[in-house]
Amino acid sequence: MRVLGVDPGLTRCGLGVVDAHGRRAALVDVRVASTPADTATEVRLAHIADALDAVIAEHAPEAIALERVFAQNNVRTVMGTAQASGVVLLAAARHGLPIALYTPSEVKAAVTGDGRAKKPQVGYMVARILGLDEPPKPADAADALAIAITHAWRGKTPTSTTAQSRWAAAEAAARRRG
Amino acid sequence: MRVLGVDPGLTRCGLGVVDAHGRRAALVDVRVASTPADTATEVRLAHIADALDAVIAEHAPEAIALERVFAQNNVRTVMGTAQASGVVLLAAARHGLPIALYTPSEVKAAVTGDGRAKKPQVGYMVARILGLDEPPKPADAADALAIAITHAWRGKTPTSTTAQSRWAAAEAAARRRG
Repeated sequence: MRVLGVDPGLTRCGLGVVDAHGRRAALVDVRVASTPADTATEVRLAHIADALDAVIAEHAPEAIALERVFAQNNVRTVMGTAQASGVVLLAAARHGLPIALYTPSEVKAAVTGDGRAKKPQVGYMVARILGLDEPPKPADAADALAIAITHAWRGKTPTSTTAQSRWAAAEAAARRRG
Repeated sequence: MRVLGVDPGLTRCGLGVVDAHGRRAALVDVRVASTPADTATEVRLAHIADALDAVIAEHAPEAIALERVFAQNNVRTVMGTAQASGVVLLAAARHGLPIALYTPSEVKAAVTGDGRAKKPQVGYMVARILGLDEPPKPADAADALAIAITHAWRGKTPTSTTAQSRWAAAEAAARRRG
């Protein structure tokens, strides 16, 4: 199963593609879509959308896994992250791909066994699982791969029902024909 | 000046197009993109994106005005609204249109003279300004038109700098050619 994991963010959006068979997983691609902080929000979101379109066209993932956004202390950051996640959800629908959401603690628990693991531990385990010499940098890249691995290993709880995925796929197909 | 005003929301997203010359304004179109509450978020966002694409193709607005989302009491609703606003911002960038954001109180002040006006008063004034027999229904439709009127009347404070808008327009043109 090939999964595109996305760590959403306006400043750095991690995109990681993983192939998984049973408990084994291999790195396909990882990149980070980033824009300077003084860029207009709509331009930053378009940059993320373009990066998603490119990685989907290049690697044809079967599913997208996205980190779920929570309201935290920094409301401003959360708003930007929620907008970026909206763009990721839209890309999934328009490409007819099922999308599943995971909380940060679900991702940490899946790759490290500890839902409260620190970032370096997540990076370390991602490198181990994928057989890399060192953790992917920056942390957004490692997180995106961790999210993809989480879905590949747990991939039975997509947020879309089958009927909704079919509907989205039919819409996407109609759009391509149109 | 032709403006598309958007009142973002997952359940009901208001889209209102207004033509304005000086202090006069005329209704061009108003619609509400809505989906049942049990629809998958990505399908709801795709529905909003499709409605935006359709209204832009049909009426060719020169600018988009969007209500700014704030963190409020209901965090869940705010997240959905932020995701919807991300889709609107993306549509602006992809169509090469400048987009401006206004707070609810800026919109209320612009159309009623009172930043704390109640919803019925906004609807009443929108109907008066546009020469309609009665306030547009539902409230999301009236709000979208109020946002469009606000921008048409104040339209000197877009969030995009000219250079960024040009960049977005060039990108959109390149995409159409590609």
